[in-house]
Amino acid sequence: MPLVRPNVLSTAGYIPGEQPLDDATIKLNTNENPYPPSPKAIEAIRAVSPEQLRRYPSPNARHFREAAARVHGVSPDQIMAFNGGDELLTCAIRASAGEQDNVAFLDPSYSLYPILTDIQGARKISIPYELANNQWQLPATIESTNAALLLIVNPNAPTGHLNPLSRIEQIARSFKGLLLLDEAYIDFAGPDASALPLLKDLHLPNVLILRTMSKGYSLAGLRFGYAIGPRELLAQLEKVRESYPVDAIAQAAATAAIEDQAYARDTWQKVISERTRLTTALETLGFSIPESKSNFLLATIPSKRGITAKGLYESLKGKGILVRYWDLPRIADKLRITIGTPAQNDRLLVELKTLV
Amino acid sequence: MPLVRPNVLSTAGYIPGEQPLDDATIKLNTNENPYPPSPKAIEAIRAVSPEQLRRYPSPNARHFREAAARVHGVSPDQIMAFNGGDELLTCAIRASAGEQDNVAFLDPSYSLYPILTDIQGARKISIPYELANNQWQLPATIESTNAALLLIVNPNAPTGHLNPLSRIEQIARSFKGLLLLDEAYIDFAGPDASALPLLKDLHLPNVLILRTMSKGYSLAGLRFGYAIGPRELLAQLEKVRESYPVDAIAQAAATAAIEDQAYARDTWQKVISERTRLTTALETLGFSIPESKSNFLLATIPSKRGITAKGLYESLKGKGILVRYWDLPRIADKLRITIGTPAQNDRLLVELKTLV
Repeated sequence: MPLVRPNVLSTAGYIPGEQPLDDATIKLNTNENPYPPSPKAIEAIRAVSPEQLRRYPSPNARHFREAAARVHGVSPDQIMAFNGGDELLTCAIRASAGEQDNVAFLDPSYSLYPILTDIQGARKISIPYELANNQWQLPATIESTNAALLLIVNPNAPTGHLNPLSRIEQIARSFKGLLLLDEAYIDFAGPDASALPLLKDLHLPNVLILRTMSKGYSLAGLRFGYAIGPRELLAQLEKVRESYPVDAIAQAAATAAIEDQAYARDTWQKVISERTRLTTALETLGFSIPESKSNFLLATIPSKRGITAKGLYESLKGKGILVRYWDLPRIADKLRITIGTPAQNDRLLVELKTLV
Repeated sequence: MPLVRPNVLSTAGYIPGEQPLDDATIKLNTNENPYPPSPKAIEAIRAVSPEQLRRYPSPNARHFREAAARVHGVSPDQIMAFNGGDELLTCAIRASAGEQDNVAFLDPSYSLYPILTDIQGARKISIPYELANNQWQLPATIESTNAALLLIVNPNAPTGHLNPLSRIEQIARSFKGLLLLDEAYIDFAGPDASALPLLKDLHLPNVLILRTMSKGYSLAGLRFGYAIGPRELLAQLEKVRESYPVDAIAQAAATAAIEDQAYARDTWQKVISERTRLTTALETLGFSIPESKSNFLLATIPSKRGITAKGLYESLKGKGILVRYWDLPRIADKLRITIGTPAQNDRLLVELKTLV
């Protein structure tokens, strides 16, 4: 008997972006917020007691759920904490899709989705984004997809574009399965971008929103994500989730960070402002960039002889700047560049000027 | 289309032991170590920098794996970190058992196993422990079980008894699937109890050992467990595990804690010494207790008129002492009592004297 299932043996697994341990590298490859987390989160961590570590934590992250509920104007039982947004993705697939069920997602999109589907042993449906006039668009027929689960990142990764809420609402109303809206980057998309009204005003029973503290709240090192969704659906997801998904320290830090909205919003504004500046500067260098509502740009490299995306990625790496490159059909001529601090973006532009 | 799979809808989910938020309750219900974690773990937490929180953590918990490898005398690539031991259980089931496969476990044993099997949609095989002369024994035919995965807790929970290594070795050599040895409580069982020699000396390819920092290292609030296993098997499990399973703070604290072996061993000795004292004192009160090699006792209540395990559990709760009671066929006349500090155990004995 083989020790591992054939679907696990045959998948390659997810390769996380490079995480150098040094502090000198300019990391523009995994979409972290370039600014540090709220000082209140640091204080909360320093205040954790030995007794809190000795005991099991609150299984349901009670204080965090209350804080997030206040921020979003929902009830605490519409919030559910996870060990990073990725754990919610795993959990949603496990809850909704058996081996005979379909899981649908867009291409290009978050490259973890097909891998999680393979690991579950469910069936993949990859739906191509339509690209016209440098604009990515959801196909018109997507809502009739026969799938237990449809995953849409909004704003999308790695393209950075935002699908308008009116289109998301159409899909949510017609699609027959569970619709997971991965809003990992929503904090950089402006106040009216989120699908929250589908839950708060329309009470759609099949909509599940993913949020993370990794990007908007500068806490990628903490592993803390959460779901916003209908109570009945969360009660089912809770069975599938780990019994104690988030530790006592992470609960304290995430609660302090989400309560400090003013601090977080200030970092979002700075990132948005740099996004505009960096887009213009890269376009001047010959890059082509669809409008990004996220904290990264997907830049098609200038069409000049001898320049490839892979070559640029490697040249930048040699100069201590990491960006993201995928050798995949629709994006092999592009680099995904996380918005850094003004100084980091300046360094990137200086180096690129010598390379393109 | 229902939004959730039928196997998820029909399972009740795991109910964690009660976790009161006050500090006054004496918690003898979820097998925490009664002593605080190593001061070095606390120092490591306080030393975490904002930059470590802002960035994604090491995906593979490199420093922890190196430290654990030194403690166990194995190579770092035979160690793998998880967000608590429970995440390793989930991961092992997902890696090994599809919907047509069997997952086998003992009864009584850790009550999470059948629930995780139900959630996976795999098939359960519950194998009864044999009980003779107040001794729990693994059945003679267990190694011929037709299952993709066999889960054995050793020392067992909730019984506390230790299955001898010679018997575990027989099973590991004959059983055709993956054998997961859940050694969550091994630190309280003495130096020769662990199945580590099956990996280090015999190099059996189908043996996976679970360890946790929750019990022996007083870090239940941190969520940190790990696997010790063959490299090839861990490489497959890594595909199934979350990409960033353990956060930067947990990595730092767990590394400091496992490096402070002298501190941890001192707490184990104190617990073992109290285990002997509490066993004798409870037997004097009429409880019947099989030998425990763990940090808890499974005590059959005195057979007196009017006394039930449930009634005793509730009376103790009314006096601010939590123990664990299950309304399950083979253990409904028993209470599981975690070994506390000498003062906590004294309080328990004082209250029990008035109740039995």
